[in-house]
Amino acid sequence: MKIVLDAMGGDHAPAVVIDGAVQAVKELGIELILVGIEEDIRRELARHDISGLPLTIVHAPDVIEMDEHVDALKSKPNASIRVGMRIVREGQADAFASAGNSGAVMASAILDLRRIRGIKRPALATVYPVAPTPVLLIDNGANTDPKPENLLQFAQMGAAYVEKLWGIQNPKVAIVSNGEEDDKGNQLVRETLPLLKASGLNFVGNAEGKDVTKGIANVIVTDGFTGNVMLKLTEGLVSFLARYFKHELTDGLLNKTALALMVPGLLLATPGILLMLPTFKRIAKRVDYAEYGGAPLLGVDGVVVIGHGRSNAKAIKNMVRVARDMAQVNLVQVIKTAVTESEEG
Amino acid sequence: MKIVLDAMGGDHAPAVVIDGAVQAVKELGIELILVGIEEDIRRELARHDISGLPLTIVHAPDVIEMDEHVDALKSKPNASIRVGMRIVREGQADAFASAGNSGAVMASAILDLRRIRGIKRPALATVYPVAPTPVLLIDNGANTDPKPENLLQFAQMGAAYVEKLWGIQNPKVAIVSNGEEDDKGNQLVRETLPLLKASGLNFVGNAEGKDVTKGIANVIVTDGFTGNVMLKLTEGLVSFLARYFKHELTDGLLNKTALALMVPGLLLATPGILLMLPTFKRIAKRVDYAEYGGAPLLGVDGVVVIGHGRSNAKAIKNMVRVARDMAQVNLVQVIKTAVTESEEG
Repeated sequence: MKIVLDAMGGDHAPAVVIDGAVQAVKELGIELILVGIEEDIRRELARHDISGLPLTIVHAPDVIEMDEHVDALKSKPNASIRVGMRIVREGQADAFASAGNSGAVMASAILDLRRIRGIKRPALATVYPVAPTPVLLIDNGANTDPKPENLLQFAQMGAAYVEKLWGIQNPKVAIVSNGEEDDKGNQLVRETLPLLKASGLNFVGNAEGKDVTKGIANVIVTDGFTGNVMLKLTEGLVSFLARYFKHELTDGLLNKTALALMVPGLLLATPGILLMLPTFKRIAKRVDYAEYGGAPLLGVDGVVVIGHGRSNAKAIKNMVRVARDMAQVNLVQVIKTAVTESEEG
Repeated sequence: MKIVLDAMGGDHAPAVVIDGAVQAVKELGIELILVGIEEDIRRELARHDISGLPLTIVHAPDVIEMDEHVDALKSKPNASIRVGMRIVREGQADAFASAGNSGAVMASAILDLRRIRGIKRPALATVYPVAPTPVLLIDNGANTDPKPENLLQFAQMGAAYVEKLWGIQNPKVAIVSNGEEDDKGNQLVRETLPLLKASGLNFVGNAEGKDVTKGIANVIVTDGFTGNVMLKLTEGLVSFLARYFKHELTDGLLNKTALALMVPGLLLATPGILLMLPTFKRIAKRVDYAEYGGAPLLGVDGVVVIGHGRSNAKAIKNMVRVARDMAQVNLVQVIKTAVTESEEG
C-alpha cells in the first residue's frame, strides 16, 4: 500500500509533516511518497534515522499556501497538491493525504482525480466526536449551497463509509433540521426528506442540534455551511468550557489556599483537585482532531483525506491511517457500486 | 406597567406558570394579567397567598397545545395566546409573554399585533450564553429561509435591543459564516454582506462557529435554521459534557475508594472532589435558559417574549422581567424609528 503525503501542507509544514510521516511508516505498514520541495523534505528527514524505511520523495517545485485563494491551483500545476493527485490518478499510489489548504485540495481532487461518475458533488466528512458513539457528519464545508439530490448522495456516501470503515451494518442516517416534525426544516431539508425516505437507507428522520450529541444516528447529513458552523461551534464551545473550568479550578485552589491558612486540615483536599486532571485530559483527547486524523473527501475518483491545518505529527500519522483504511476497504469502488445501484434502483 | 402572561403556555402549565407569576408580581414591580381557563388559574392561585397582589384574570376558553400545528390558531380565536395578544393590541397592557407553543405565539403575534411597518419578517432573538460576555443571536427559528434584506433588519433590530436593554453603545454586529473571508459563506451570507457593510451598523464581519464563543460581537445574525441548530447543539453539548464529567467523577470516586482501601491516606482527597461541585453548578447556571428568561420576538408591533417550553417558575419570572424591560425602554418605538431612519438614509 502506497500513500502520497503532501509534505508542504499544514501550518507547521514541512517539519511536522515529516515527523508524522516517519511515525506513519514505522507504525502503519505502508509506504509513503512525500511530495514537495525536495531540498526541504531532505533537510527535515535528516533529523530522523530513516534507514530502511519505505519513504520516497517526489519533487514538486510549487506550494499553495494555507491562505492562498483556490484559483492559485490553475497557475501552479506543479504545486505539491497537484503533483500528488496526479500520482494517484496514474495508479502509482493508493491514496492522497494533505493537511494543506483544504479548498485547494478539494478543488485539485475534482480537477485532477475527477468525480466518481454519477456523483454530482463530492463532500467532506468528519467524525463528530462529542457523542456517546462516533458520528459521521457530512458535508462540513465542500458545498455551501447544495441541492436535495446532493444531500441524498452525501447520505449514501456517508453510509458506505461508516459501514466499511467502522463496521456498522445498515447505519442509521439522519438529516440536520430545526425540529423533529417533517414540516420543519428549511426548503432544502424539506425537499431532501422524501428523497431520503425513498432511498433504501436506514433513515431515522430529522436530527435537531441537541440530537447530534445524543448519537441518534451514525451518519448525520447537512449542507456544508451548516456542517462547518456546527463543527467550529463545537470546537469553540469545548475550548471555552475547558478555559472556564481551568479558571474556576484556579480560583477554587486560590480560595482554598486562603482558607487553608485558617483551617490547615483543608490543605488535605488538594490531591482531590489533582485527581481531576485526567478527566480534563480525557475530554480534551476526545474532542482532539489529532485522534481522528483527517476528513475524507468522498465522491472523487480516488482516496483523498484532508487534515486540519494545525495538525501535529500525531494528527498527520492518523490522517495517513484514515487514508490507508479507506484504500484497504476499496471505498471508492464501494461508492461507485452504491451509486450505480441507486441509479438503477 | 401591565404585562399579559399566558397561563396555559408551557410543558408544566398552568401550575408552574402561576408559581412564576406570583414570584414576578412580588419582585418585579409590575401588574400581571393572567389569560387562560379561569377555573384552572383560580385553582392554582389558591395554592398561594395572593392578597393585595396586582393579579387579574382574563378568561380564554381555548388552549393551543405545545405540539399542535400552528394552523390551530385560525380555528381557535379564543385561545389564551390570541386573547392575550388582543389585550396588548388594544393598549390594555404593555407586553405579552408565553412559554407556550412558540410557532403559534409567533404566528399569533404577526396575525393579531401585526408587523412593524417596514419590517418584512419578525425574528426571534436569544441570549447565547456560552461566551465571555452575553451575545444576542438572531434569528433562532422564526425564518428558516430568509432573504438578505431580512437578515439586515434582524441585525438592525438586534443592535437596537442590545443598545437599549444591555446598555452597549454602538454594539458590534457579525454574521455567521463558514470562514472569515468575504468570499466565504453560502449565497445568503454573501449577498447579505454588502448590505451589512453599508448599513451604518458597527459591522465587524463574518463569525465562524468558534468565534461565537469568543464573544467577537454583541449581536450575531443568522438565518433561523442555522440559529436554531446552533442553540440546540449548544444545549446538547453542554448537557453531554456535564453527563460525561459526572460519569468520570463517579468513576474517579469509585477508583479512589478502591485505592483508598489500600492507601488509607488517599481517602483524605475526597473533600477536593466535593469542592468541585460549585464549579459544575456555576456552569450549569450559566447555560441555564431559566436565568435569561425568554426570547424576544422582534419586529412585531408590541412587546412579545417567548419562553422555553420547559420553563420552571424562575424562568417564567425572568421571562416576565425581559418583557417588562423591553416595554420600559419602549423598544418597539426604538425599532420603528430605526426602520424609518434606515429607509430614509
